[in-house]
Amino acid sequence: MENWKEKYGQWALVLGATDGIGKEFVKYFAANKMDVLLVGRRQDALQELGLAIEKEYGVAFQVLVQDLTAADAAQVLIERTRDLDVGIMNFVACSYTMGSYHKIGFDAHQRVLNININNYSALLYHFAGVFAAKKRGGIITMSSLTAFCGNPYNAEYAATKAYMQILTESIAGELKPHGVDVLVITAGSTRTPDWYKNQPAGVSAEDTTGTMSPAEVVLDGMPQLGKSFTHIAGEHNRAAYHHFLSDMTRDETTNMFGGFYSHLA
Amino acid sequence: MENWKEKYGQWALVLGATDGIGKEFVKYFAANKMDVLLVGRRQDALQELGLAIEKEYGVAFQVLVQDLTAADAAQVLIERTRDLDVGIMNFVACSYTMGSYHKIGFDAHQRVLNININNYSALLYHFAGVFAAKKRGGIITMSSLTAFCGNPYNAEYAATKAYMQILTESIAGELKPHGVDVLVITAGSTRTPDWYKNQPAGVSAEDTTGTMSPAEVVLDGMPQLGKSFTHIAGEHNRAAYHHFLSDMTRDETTNMFGGFYSHLA
Repeated sequence: MENWKEKYGQWALVLGATDGIGKEFVKYFAANKMDVLLVGRRQDALQELGLAIEKEYGVAFQVLVQDLTAADAAQVLIERTRDLDVGIMNFVACSYTMGSYHKIGFDAHQRVLNININNYSALLYHFAGVFAAKKRGGIITMSSLTAFCGNPYNAEYAATKAYMQILTESIAGELKPHGVDVLVITAGSTRTPDWYKNQPAGVSAEDTTGTMSPAEVVLDGMPQLGKSFTHIAGEHNRAAYHHFLSDMTRDETTNMFGGFYSHLA
Repeated sequence: MENWKEKYGQWALVLGATDGIGKEFVKYFAANKMDVLLVGRRQDALQELGLAIEKEYGVAFQVLVQDLTAADAAQVLIERTRDLDVGIMNFVACSYTMGSYHKIGFDAHQRVLNININNYSALLYHFAGVFAAKKRGGIITMSSLTAFCGNPYNAEYAATKAYMQILTESIAGELKPHGVDVLVITAGSTRTPDWYKNQPAGVSAEDTTGTMSPAEVVLDGMPQLGKSFTHIAGEHNRAAYHHFLSDMTRDETTNMFGGFYSHLA
């Protein structure tokens, strides 16, 4: 493992660090000798994870308890990290609304907009400026295959992931001449706690065909940091992307994705 | 032309009606015998357009002067149209920020977020509910080929168009069983006033190779209403879409789009 504290800066800021893919990123940055800022909602779980990486990798950690669906989350975190040498921003947290878009209270959609669009944009904007000024830094953002196709009954999540995918790819191109590495990693079905909560119709929790573990997603994606702007994790997900975009019409993909969750209409 | 006042409802609400593609939609709805609600910033231009369709097609019109980049624009328009039988919502208006994302004041990005994400979402949510309850209605939203690839130096526009593209395709799938027709029309280079203001490097205003007129975009797209969820306007744009998504890597498209505007870095 490289010493990324020298390459990127002292701290890796992991937004959504508590479990799933974020927790695997925490271990990855710690293995690369970075100290880690753990952002999530659960103090106890984050503290436990921090102590584990301190013990295993000899790195420091800080727990920043923050609900990223709160309207002011980005500003709070920008203030709390202003005096630290943040070298990597890693945005993994997400939220979603399942069901018919127009039947769900708009306040639930607003929380998704807050985390995936408003707070993500504010943090990306802030750290893009900080890293460009320092001529070093890394930004790694998680996206989803849903970003590329219509997703009835999972509309807000898919649309906000499309925003994150395209914004991050764009900023990756802009920041490359400034020496800043930006990578969006697009995941397919990944065995996170949220995935088990939202199985498509007819799929049992035991049927993990075509899924990846959170660790596999991180290990497949991270070698691309500094090499590519964007990477789809997993050979089968890369094949699915090409199948969806090249072999199927957009109406066909919308109908296919809609079929996964039409029982929630 | 069909009588859409009977099919969809009395009024077509055209958001961004003043010129370009929106103005052509206004004429299209008037030709289909719908009365038209003209939303834009310039009272005089909208009044002139309203009088022209009144004279040519014998339809009624109302001018609603509203800057759609204002944070409360959707709520204002929802209140102003609450007692009207709106049959079609047509969202054409857009805003953009050109240049390096992190060097542009965030207030400018916020205005793009207001129009393309916050106000668009609030209006889509409102009319999706209204139309689903009536079991009739149409929603036509303009998107852009930039929605599918990274666009350095045009990042916020592209990302918000990606959001609109995917959200609208998703809602199209959800509303079809409710008898509501939703269509996203994706345009490439179109000879609108804004296009002339933002020519890619090395392109002169006289070089209109591969571009479409606003009227061509509307006439190519609208026959798909009720038939498809999503349509790319123009055979050469459909070919470009397949080339970008099937033949090129995502890094290659990001670098290609970035090259159009790198002089603004």
